[in-house]
Amino acid sequence: MAGELVFVGLGLYDHLDISLRGLREVKDAAYIFAEFYTSLMPGFVLDDFRKISGKDVTVVSRRNLEDEGGKAILERARDAKVVLLVPGDPLIATTHIALRLRAEREGIKTKVVHGASIISAVVGLSGLQNYRFGKSVTIPFSEGGRLSKTPYLVVAENKARNLHTLCFLDVRAEENKYMTIKEALEILLTLEENNRQGVITGKNLAVGIARAGSGDVIVKADAIKDLVNFDFGRPPHSLILPAEKLHFMEAEALIVIANAPKWVMEMSK
Amino acid sequence: MAGELVFVGLGLYDHLDISLRGLREVKDAAYIFAEFYTSLMPGFVLDDFRKISGKDVTVVSRRNLEDEGGKAILERARDAKVVLLVPGDPLIATTHIALRLRAEREGIKTKVVHGASIISAVVGLSGLQNYRFGKSVTIPFSEGGRLSKTPYLVVAENKARNLHTLCFLDVRAEENKYMTIKEALEILLTLEENNRQGVITGKNLAVGIARAGSGDVIVKADAIKDLVNFDFGRPPHSLILPAEKLHFMEAEALIVIANAPKWVMEMSK
Repeated sequence: MAGELVFVGLGLYDHLDISLRGLREVKDAAYIFAEFYTSLMPGFVLDDFRKISGKDVTVVSRRNLEDEGGKAILERARDAKVVLLVPGDPLIATTHIALRLRAEREGIKTKVVHGASIISAVVGLSGLQNYRFGKSVTIPFSEGGRLSKTPYLVVAENKARNLHTLCFLDVRAEENKYMTIKEALEILLTLEENNRQGVITGKNLAVGIARAGSGDVIVKADAIKDLVNFDFGRPPHSLILPAEKLHFMEAEALIVIANAPKWVMEMSK
Repeated sequence: MAGELVFVGLGLYDHLDISLRGLREVKDAAYIFAEFYTSLMPGFVLDDFRKISGKDVTVVSRRNLEDEGGKAILERARDAKVVLLVPGDPLIATTHIALRLRAEREGIKTKVVHGASIISAVVGLSGLQNYRFGKSVTIPFSEGGRLSKTPYLVVAENKARNLHTLCFLDVRAEENKYMTIKEALEILLTLEENNRQGVITGKNLAVGIARAGSGDVIVKADAIKDLVNFDFGRPPHSLILPAEKLHFMEAEALIVIANAPKWVMEMSK
């Protein structure tokens, strides 16, 4: 029998965020692997997933997928149907693309079952308009005390074009470190201090989103100097830095949905 | 009993693309509405959905949601749990945001259950890197013989920053018109003829994606002059116009996954 490798997206929060199509693929597979190091799925419990799928799941690490090239997965996929469960929508992380290319080159058929992604979720949850987002960026933790300037440059470039910036916050699953909105804002304010171009000041608006897809999702918009003190609770967190100008309906949405201060209406004039 | 309006994403293709969480909300609701005019879900059959959910679904039109402001939905949501089923991930379309704001202003609680979106799906399917996408754009059909110049300007702006452009293709569900990749490329080539800035020529690379999320998804990359003759089959279609420079792994992915011509490797040098 010819094998197959199916990438199945788990969606955002827990074992209920997989699609019916994804669950069907799982039930139909001979081997199920899962990785949880590219994103945090705080509500996902393996035992719950075993109950709904009737299947055992082998969790793979970054070392398994990257250093070892996913060898264990590819070996089984040569003559059996294998599912790799992935948080969010599959193939957004380079790691998964690399594995897919290795499989295809070895003659193993691959397939994708999509899942809800933080990329579209935070756009919808914020009420900001999708076509007004520029390039997105990840805010990394400092490395040996050094901060990457990239987030600052990306926000500056987007703001110059009157575009919003979606910021993914650093995930270091091996160290159990998930960047919070507070940490991200402090990094951005430090970058502003170091560069002083007025791109990200305490007065600027930011929108924080915590635990997208869960029952206790929080979406809160405020000036950075105030948002930095807002308690968003547990990770995962995401952050949006809006453009200086808002569409009228974006301002309204931020007030109604994200409890923004009334002065955001001025940004739509 | 206090009412509630739950926006549930249906995902990309058919009735199996809803999440387990979404289906649970449907089973638990007193009234189910659905709209299919913002996106095409070609495999979705109401009867199949009734079978898996045990629920009747009322399909609403653009007129119901926009001209009438979703009155029928809001009236029921005042004192009962109501689900609105939406293709893809909810609240990406302005229409849904407007309905959510009206509900919240009337004191009706709202909630979102996310679904797979074309926004992340086409990124993953193409093998191109998410953080290299700039602003996205919709390519509209001509209106009275006049073409919108916006797509040309957006692609030009993104290319100047070495970024990819995701193009959504126009959907006019009421007229059963769904723009094809061929039509979109012809519009872009006409815009190039009218503007002559060398932004979108026949030699440039484009990536077409047809029926994302389905069993017969097609992803094909080629020079625009050749891609315009490629048969992608039935809609829905999407289009990516990549930057002039590719990352080495992006070029490899396009060759392996999207059957791109070998010269795309030159774009990664």
